[in-house]
Amino acid sequence: MERQCLMIPGPTPVPVGAALAGAQPMINHRGPEFGALLSEVTGSLARVLVTHGTVLVFPASGTGGMEASAVNLLSPGDKVLVAVAGEFGSRFAEILRVTGAQVSTIEVEWGTRVDPAAIRAALESDPAIRAVVVTHNETSTGVTMDLASIRRAIVREDVLFIVDAISSMGAIQLHQDEWGIDAVVGGSQKGLMTPPGLAMISLSPKAWDKVERTTRRSVYWDFMAARKFFERPTAQTPYTPAVSLLYSLRESLRMLESEGLENVYRRHRMLARAVRAGVRGIGLEPLAPDDCASSTVTAVKLPDGVDAKSLLSTLRKEYGVVIAGGQGSLSGRIIRIGHVGNVSWQEVVVSLSAIEMALAKLGRSVDRGASVAAAEEVFMARG
Amino acid sequence: MERQCLMIPGPTPVPVGAALAGAQPMINHRGPEFGALLSEVTGSLARVLVTHGTVLVFPASGTGGMEASAVNLLSPGDKVLVAVAGEFGSRFAEILRVTGAQVSTIEVEWGTRVDPAAIRAALESDPAIRAVVVTHNETSTGVTMDLASIRRAIVREDVLFIVDAISSMGAIQLHQDEWGIDAVVGGSQKGLMTPPGLAMISLSPKAWDKVERTTRRSVYWDFMAARKFFERPTAQTPYTPAVSLLYSLRESLRMLESEGLENVYRRHRMLARAVRAGVRGIGLEPLAPDDCASSTVTAVKLPDGVDAKSLLSTLRKEYGVVIAGGQGSLSGRIIRIGHVGNVSWQEVVVSLSAIEMALAKLGRSVDRGASVAAAEEVFMARG
Repeated sequence: MERQCLMIPGPTPVPVGAALAGAQPMINHRGPEFGALLSEVTGSLARVLVTHGTVLVFPASGTGGMEASAVNLLSPGDKVLVAVAGEFGSRFAEILRVTGAQVSTIEVEWGTRVDPAAIRAALESDPAIRAVVVTHNETSTGVTMDLASIRRAIVREDVLFIVDAISSMGAIQLHQDEWGIDAVVGGSQKGLMTPPGLAMISLSPKAWDKVERTTRRSVYWDFMAARKFFERPTAQTPYTPAVSLLYSLRESLRMLESEGLENVYRRHRMLARAVRAGVRGIGLEPLAPDDCASSTVTAVKLPDGVDAKSLLSTLRKEYGVVIAGGQGSLSGRIIRIGHVGNVSWQEVVVSLSAIEMALAKLGRSVDRGASVAAAEEVFMARG
Repeated sequence: MERQCLMIPGPTPVPVGAALAGAQPMINHRGPEFGALLSEVTGSLARVLVTHGTVLVFPASGTGGMEASAVNLLSPGDKVLVAVAGEFGSRFAEILRVTGAQVSTIEVEWGTRVDPAAIRAALESDPAIRAVVVTHNETSTGVTMDLASIRRAIVREDVLFIVDAISSMGAIQLHQDEWGIDAVVGGSQKGLMTPPGLAMISLSPKAWDKVERTTRRSVYWDFMAARKFFERPTAQTPYTPAVSLLYSLRESLRMLESEGLENVYRRHRMLARAVRAGVRGIGLEPLAPDDCASSTVTAVKLPDGVDAKSLLSTLRKEYGVVIAGGQGSLSGRIIRIGHVGNVSWQEVVVSLSAIEMALAKLGRSVDRGASVAAAEEVFMARG
């Protein structure tokens, strides 16, 4: 019997209830059943983001949500500052460049977090900057940014604060209104425990002002059209929505709200602490320092002499545990253990145990059981 | 007990097997299981389109596929000719305009088909035109275009032939290579019997030549990047794919190939004939003439004194039959009965019977049973 334990930072395991919810009979996307579905989903997403703003949902993966924000919030030639602290910051910068913005970047050492002072300085040195883009949770390095502090560094009223929260939404706390975030981009396939294929964008009134003034360059991503349809008495989307994924998302959101968002965030923090304690227990070291460690994904430095590909392949083939390798400049140098969404202490124990066995199998001396023991300490300390 | 009979032209009913296939456990989109899934799906789509070209799949609905084609196949300022024979031709023209092409249109009376001679004349009068865009099956009017004849009218070698086959793919025959089509855009939610959220684009070598020379304006829709990832030893997508929808699509494609594509197309033609005979049996008239009637959707003219909204709402609330109204200039003047995808003679009989009852309920005199009788004639004549 082959059983897989999927511990990549996304797509994440979908709860059976949410997966089966997606198999419900198809409905008319212009009818009342769909209107109720869409309204419930966007209402719940607004509660997750603690916002009174408008949440839009598109059939697309997260990268599509980034591109949608780029073309709706920035006209060609608009200046934007992007904090690049890993692969996903780099991707957002590329999207902005390709769609015509004038991009300047703050390059942050991979594995560390964005320094608000650097943002402040960059904004002071270039008054033409119209927007700041930050990755909330940099999946390529396992680092979470301090959005509230970054917001305080953006002192100018005319600058939009755009946040990629694809890998944090529903797993790491984000208070959109309180933290003054103008646009939050999310995806269905991580903390929201839904199959990939939905991108969501939550916009502040200030963001809408800008959308209204931005050159229209896309029909598919048109936020103005989307808002008009969403706000009909029976909510709709301008073009055909991904109905089955919305069914699944509704179910996953109900689960998250029933667990309680605070509890969900606490569970993720605990899993992250357990993974970090676990890998340290067998002499490995997380890439990110404790004070900015992500609670959804842990990047772990590979010791000399351990080949990333062999380790990942042994884990998958021998033990059914699927984790991720490094991206970009970290390729071959780290492994990344996802612990996001529909994940509990059980999967963490299984993953750590598999890592112990795989390392031993690859000829490395491992204090067998030590990583699990260290994780147990964390689990037993809760409550 | 409320049972719904979904007879809109899309999204269409998903076979239970395909719906449940989407609920399979999530997998790593960079792993071998996903590679096998993607390769099977694109291979099968190429067989459906009878092409040796490359088929790409994106997480998006059909409109996203149109926009993807627009930004990859046309640089800003490129001249394109669009045949507008209804709402969807009009949408493609809008997308092309908004994404920067210079668009000229051939306006075709709604309910009739594109005249190849008009395409030929337009191309002759403007040698700068670089592409011709045609909607294969115009869902807003129930008309199918004669692509092979249109192709013969495009005599110039330097002109791309781009076809929106969103509402025909898998339901109406389309021979991409034989008919010389350079780009075919499809969607998952109609003939392919899969939930909405996947757009597919099939490209000829000539289309790829143009893609390589087109100004890069999108990261999400980047065909060059997509091809590079699709062609890896283990097929991948550049960004997170809609895994669960691909599971469903694989299952639906297996069903279509197991029924036999010729049989599938024949079934759709039979259903269309039955619907047309049925509505005529109670004195109604299809919008489109027989010689260009769509085999996936039938637009039916409403007789004077019958209110479209009341009819649709009675059908839905009293009889659970969901059909569509008119779009654009046909709003309030027609109803549209979808008969596409996972649909058999049974749903046609149910729909016709419900229409008889609903018309009677709205005070119209109806020769009860006459539409069903006329449809039965068609069903019994087969084989």
